[in-house]
Amino acid sequence: MTDNTTLWDTGRRDKAERLRQAAGLATGKIVPTGSTVDLLHAVMRPGDRVALEGNNQKQADFLSRALAQVDPERIHDLHMLFSSIARPEHLDIFEDGIARKVDFAFSGPQSARVAQLVDDGTLQVGAIHTYLELYSRMYLDLAPKVALVAAVSADRDGNLYTGPNTEDTPTITEATAFRSGIVIAQVNEIVDKVPRVDVPGDWVDFIVEADRPFEVEPLFTRDPRDLTDVHVLLAMLTIRGVYERHQVTSLNHGVGLDTAAIELLLPTYGEQLGLKGRICTHWALNPHPNLIPAIESGWVEQISAFGGEVGMSRYVAARPDIFATGPDGSLRSNRMAAQSAGLYATDMFVGSTLQVDPEGNSSTVIQGRLAGFGGAPNLGADSRGRRHSSPAWFDLSEGRGQLGVERGRKLVVQIAETFNAGSEPKFVEQLDAVAVGDNAGMDLAPVMVYGDDLTHLVSEVGVGYLYKAQSLDERRRVVSALAGVTPVGRRSTPEEVDALRRDGLLALPADIGVRPAEANRSLLAAHSIDELVDWSGGLYDPPAKFRSW
Amino acid sequence: MTDNTTLWDTGRRDKAERLRQAAGLATGKIVPTGSTVDLLHAVMRPGDRVALEGNNQKQADFLSRALAQVDPERIHDLHMLFSSIARPEHLDIFEDGIARKVDFAFSGPQSARVAQLVDDGTLQVGAIHTYLELYSRMYLDLAPKVALVAAVSADRDGNLYTGPNTEDTPTITEATAFRSGIVIAQVNEIVDKVPRVDVPGDWVDFIVEADRPFEVEPLFTRDPRDLTDVHVLLAMLTIRGVYERHQVTSLNHGVGLDTAAIELLLPTYGEQLGLKGRICTHWALNPHPNLIPAIESGWVEQISAFGGEVGMSRYVAARPDIFATGPDGSLRSNRMAAQSAGLYATDMFVGSTLQVDPEGNSSTVIQGRLAGFGGAPNLGADSRGRRHSSPAWFDLSEGRGQLGVERGRKLVVQIAETFNAGSEPKFVEQLDAVAVGDNAGMDLAPVMVYGDDLTHLVSEVGVGYLYKAQSLDERRRVVSALAGVTPVGRRSTPEEVDALRRDGLLALPADIGVRPAEANRSLLAAHSIDELVDWSGGLYDPPAKFRSW
Repeated sequence: MTDNTTLWDTGRRDKAERLRQAAGLATGKIVPTGSTVDLLHAVMRPGDRVALEGNNQKQADFLSRALAQVDPERIHDLHMLFSSIARPEHLDIFEDGIARKVDFAFSGPQSARVAQLVDDGTLQVGAIHTYLELYSRMYLDLAPKVALVAAVSADRDGNLYTGPNTEDTPTITEATAFRSGIVIAQVNEIVDKVPRVDVPGDWVDFIVEADRPFEVEPLFTRDPRDLTDVHVLLAMLTIRGVYERHQVTSLNHGVGLDTAAIELLLPTYGEQLGLKGRICTHWALNPHPNLIPAIESGWVEQISAFGGEVGMSRYVAARPDIFATGPDGSLRSNRMAAQSAGLYATDMFVGSTLQVDPEGNSSTVIQGRLAGFGGAPNLGADSRGRRHSSPAWFDLSEGRGQLGVERGRKLVVQIAETFNAGSEPKFVEQLDAVAVGDNAGMDLAPVMVYGDDLTHLVSEVGVGYLYKAQSLDERRRVVSALAGVTPVGRRSTPEEVDALRRDGLLALPADIGVRPAEANRSLLAAHSIDELVDWSGGLYDPPAKFRSW
Repeated sequence: MTDNTTLWDTGRRDKAERLRQAAGLATGKIVPTGSTVDLLHAVMRPGDRVALEGNNQKQADFLSRALAQVDPERIHDLHMLFSSIARPEHLDIFEDGIARKVDFAFSGPQSARVAQLVDDGTLQVGAIHTYLELYSRMYLDLAPKVALVAAVSADRDGNLYTGPNTEDTPTITEATAFRSGIVIAQVNEIVDKVPRVDVPGDWVDFIVEADRPFEVEPLFTRDPRDLTDVHVLLAMLTIRGVYERHQVTSLNHGVGLDTAAIELLLPTYGEQLGLKGRICTHWALNPHPNLIPAIESGWVEQISAFGGEVGMSRYVAARPDIFATGPDGSLRSNRMAAQSAGLYATDMFVGSTLQVDPEGNSSTVIQGRLAGFGGAPNLGADSRGRRHSSPAWFDLSEGRGQLGVERGRKLVVQIAETFNAGSEPKFVEQLDAVAVGDNAGMDLAPVMVYGDDLTHLVSEVGVGYLYKAQSLDERRRVVSALAGVTPVGRRSTPEEVDALRRDGLLALPADIGVRPAEANRSLLAAHSIDELVDWSGGLYDPPAKFRSW
């Protein structure tokens, strides 16, 4: 009954044809640096779906610069897949007509320009994903036809060594290579033997030596000098009201200053509270420099890393009991695996945001900025497929149902100082994201964490236990009570606050033994980047822009 | 401030010491077949956490047989990690004291013995996970010290070729190798050059040629002869009441007979309804033989496979536009990636169960059987981190909230004939899982899919739209209405049924244009395994036990 006229290998034939076009450019898999644009002309076709390692940190910037130089008459209307829209040329290609549509996860530094290009009709957004969701689609309905990735080195067989920034490379490469796609890797150097194999050469079609080493952004470095007494207060409230209360051992921290303060309070305030070994032993996060004092003080057992961090390589290599490292000594990161660990193996996500609405929905998308959220939606949602218990997760159970069925819940925590820098209220009547989504013609407003997934909200007012709210109205009362003197907060009455405290939905600092007068920067285990270097025994090498000496 | 007396590389030192013990046994990485038990004695220590590829299909059975032969005086109290407890010796090691604790995901054929050993206190269960959850923990708090995996072939550098059953091997290996663990691979043969590299040799410490090729179970093969008219009716109801209604394009099917019937109705009944190209184009599932007619008829665009399936290798290799395949021509499966795709990239999960309770909770755990659910909890739960829209997912939105925030929802469907074979009601007052969980001392009853995640329930009575229920009570009324003449069903009144139909929570067959009288096996695109072979143009090679000729 098979229709013998159907071709079932069109992808493979198409790939073979493209490889034929490129045959004259390569010696084995190696293409000379100067022939890169020619290579792209040979292997790309209009309308191709192209994954460009626009990563969270590591950038295939030589290849993105080459892509920006292709002839739009020949290569146009590409459908780009980026983990992160990070560099100017990631958007130049849309202005030049080389690309037209994009599916992505994060666009931090380029978010204003993304919004502008959407407004102009120059750039069409498929969707804004969380990382794991975008990778998942690469394995199903968004398989890339071409992948442009970056590694530290390659051998002549195409085996890739990524060093500590493995990140998304194996994932993008696998999704492409096994769907008759074409994988091009830029490398800092071609060597006889790579220090370890992060991606098998089988999966790579072409390697190009880049004109300079790939760019890496130190996205996870926060200078302790930027931490204020308010950050310290928020951190104290969160440690006592959430970490200690629920005995949270496994967690993820976002990149905000609030969580940086928590990391730096563990060896001081946390130690005084006798919490060492009882909380914060297992982490899904990048090698945050601010975690060095806690690691050195023996708080941390294991870290599963999404990626590396600039300057942390020597430190991580010297701490293989804490970090996953390879036979070469350096970190093995893997964003897909660590995002899975953040979803299924950790009990808590703690993040920061730019806006919270009265129902507890939060977003870092604000007017004129189409930012995306990276890992936050995945990490900051209840993992409803989870079936193993832990004290913290089980502590949020609503108890056994009538039929004997029960489940715990992931702790999803937002720390939200009532006002952002510049005196804009963080608590708003409606997220800017709603209007931004409408303007961009999106089905959905770009919400980072939904209010019904949020279990705890912390402001300098206190800690809100939203998971205990029995109704949307009750949830709104908790949010208002935490919103201070913002317009949202002014709706809260003292009587409501008392009722919420009595019912256990709200804790003021005194209720959980926190004295705001003691919230002082002096409590931090390190007050500057150079103190972090000291803590590391000289193993941490901060990037130049963070050096003050 | 660093404590210079702290050792930060205890794992690495420990590994080096173990490798030294094994040095005399290996030539390079190769250990003679007859020295395997000695190798295990050399590299294992009491209490080790050991991941054994007890996989869903592929079994490292040579290594599990070797493990069962170690001396319990030397190696005991192991903490085992299994995707699947599949073979007798997986449990023998507990009876012999070699192992004591287990974390696993599935134990189908061994579930009765697992329950018995738990009862005896011989086996301690950590938790019963869904696959992706178990892998996630391997990257964080359950990193294996030793991994025992299986591949088709290896070269002398340890590069592994898995063929179509890549499954969990790269995941387990990575989680072990980069945490100073020891990876031992059994292979069917050692070759000069592997056809493709599925796991880099860098990640593998030892390879052993097995005494015979690894075992693979044809878990996803269902003989069309076993399908009844009732399966056809359930399939028709599901196609019209769910797939067509919500225009579901991306989905996962479980392994039940109900979904097998759906697969076989697509090219017949589905075609008559004009649904080709409008539903069921993208799939996360194993290469189900029953999907061959739909593939051959042009229904399917892409399949992301968890693993392979016995007998499907030549067929899959000849359909590279549909399946991910490597340069060697064979399937590349990846359970971690496909489970992610099932979570984040598909709109619907359709499963079968052994019991459903009045709130819609379901489980395949029954009295005396501690089964586990494999991928079902992950696939059969709302992916709350999802941020991309699709017509089916968005169709389940409750509409825009007051503050402009909205989300869609994954379709989670259970098909439940009111009585199981043997006339046991499938609709029960309470899941057996509750008592089983209590007896095993578990925090949680082993529920497969929670009622509050279930969006649709289908029985021969009709289709229940549980996602529209506004209360638990309303959900219970829908479940009762579908439960037929079981005791749970007898609580439903004709007045309630009418009200539920009026409110759109229930559709009887006539409401969605299904005529039960037409539900006949003759509608199936294939009625036997040999007709599937015909459909495949002779490319499908069914396992002997499924051959009738």
